[in-house]
Amino acid sequence: MIWFTEHWTENVGLTVKANEVKRIKSKYQEILVLDTPEFGKMLVLDGLVQTTERDEFIYHEMLAHPAMVMHSNPERVLVIGGGDGGTVREILKHKSVKEVHLCEIDEEVIIVSEKYFPSISEKLRDPKVKIFIEDGNSFLEERKDYYDVIIMDSSDPVGASEVLFKKEFYEKVKSSLRKNGIMVAQTESPILQEKYFSRAFGEIRKVFRNVGVYLAYVPTYPSGMWSFTIASDFVDVKDTSVNREKVKELKTKYFCDSIYACLFALPQFVQEILKKS
Amino acid sequence: MIWFTEHWTENVGLTVKANEVKRIKSKYQEILVLDTPEFGKMLVLDGLVQTTERDEFIYHEMLAHPAMVMHSNPERVLVIGGGDGGTVREILKHKSVKEVHLCEIDEEVIIVSEKYFPSISEKLRDPKVKIFIEDGNSFLEERKDYYDVIIMDSSDPVGASEVLFKKEFYEKVKSSLRKNGIMVAQTESPILQEKYFSRAFGEIRKVFRNVGVYLAYVPTYPSGMWSFTIASDFVDVKDTSVNREKVKELKTKYFCDSIYACLFALPQFVQEILKKS
Repeated sequence: MIWFTEHWTENVGLTVKANEVKRIKSKYQEILVLDTPEFGKMLVLDGLVQTTERDEFIYHEMLAHPAMVMHSNPERVLVIGGGDGGTVREILKHKSVKEVHLCEIDEEVIIVSEKYFPSISEKLRDPKVKIFIEDGNSFLEERKDYYDVIIMDSSDPVGASEVLFKKEFYEKVKSSLRKNGIMVAQTESPILQEKYFSRAFGEIRKVFRNVGVYLAYVPTYPSGMWSFTIASDFVDVKDTSVNREKVKELKTKYFCDSIYACLFALPQFVQEILKKS
Repeated sequence: MIWFTEHWTENVGLTVKANEVKRIKSKYQEILVLDTPEFGKMLVLDGLVQTTERDEFIYHEMLAHPAMVMHSNPERVLVIGGGDGGTVREILKHKSVKEVHLCEIDEEVIIVSEKYFPSISEKLRDPKVKIFIEDGNSFLEERKDYYDVIIMDSSDPVGASEVLFKKEFYEKVKSSLRKNGIMVAQTESPILQEKYFSRAFGEIRKVFRNVGVYLAYVPTYPSGMWSFTIASDFVDVKDTSVNREKVKELKTKYFCDSIYACLFALPQFVQEILKKS
């Protein structure tokens, strides 16, 4: 056993006992699979924890379900990033869904996930799912006015994912959405990555009329407080009084009726960051 | 600079860059003061992070304010533990308060806090505050039917604090409360200390008629998801529609109207733990 440490910043990190299972250098990044007594198998990209068997449900449920519930009838859904398949699995819990496109730049992530994370990737071969090994940015240009929900399941805004946190990108997302379309993105930790969090929110707000930020507890992500930004031009994404009956039909472990009802209850200091953004 | 690691469990920990400022062995525990670039000064008892200058406001506000707000007129308040003074500071933001008793077993914690954490301990010498260097358990026996709010600001349920997590102790707390009295306790992490969390809730529920559990994001505590259990015989502690106007008068950085309104919105898996407790 080794101790694997993810440095959240220069000055703080999470350290986890682990056995190394697999290490590959793909065209884009170093992919590491660890087996940890605390969190089960853990997927690490370029030194950053992406998901673990034990707590992945939190991130994936909270990324997928709010937007899927708020849209009254999501049929076509796009996931950008998310090669591990956890977000796709959650999307398919919604019966209205007819097709899910997964646009992942790094095929190796999918291959590794299918081999080492079967409980996360289990729905990637569902007949409703189509996988595109492409850059999210150029993928969107070819699909205008097509999706009901677009989910940005990207890694941190450095390297390949940096463009996914810019206004120009959110404009492409917007033009790929149908009229009542909703987008949602993971937008980092308000505590340890305030700059990225604040910038992502600021850029998204320049593009969409209605924008909301919500949080979830993700123990293996920096600070444990993770943010998501949801946006739409025609749907009031901050109104969680709608479609409540859809929540009760979902089989989930974190997201539930009370979490949905209180989605936008933010600590004072997070509200202040948003005001300044 | 060294890297200080708190092992949250055998298999996972938080690691922080730090300079050692002070290390003392008191009668009860080892008290360590670190200076960290990420969190400012950090107080560590027997290897466990108790508070840091940067994030202490979250824990102290969320421990103190819900009970203080729910009680319609809290005049006499007791803190058991909490020698750093952060909880006392928050209590004194409520104008109805006439006296605050702090019952801390280890005087050295108070001395260290007054020397190294002035922003946390600043109200310990307020004329309304009286400090007792005593064991919480025997202290309560001498004060029946006295307090409006009792706050358990204890360390983890090992060593000196273990008795503070038992039914017999909560019975003493109850008999020291006045009729509309409310108690609240920190009750560990539902993710990494499920056993303690579940047991504390189970024991409190045996003693009080109304019991509620709420959470807050504390980045330097195990898993970042921290729980608090609030209880009362005569106040419906789960009704956050009361005394909302008191929240708006408070100067706080985490606790606020929307956090209060949504205090009891729990993730599904936390609800399941409580059902089984």
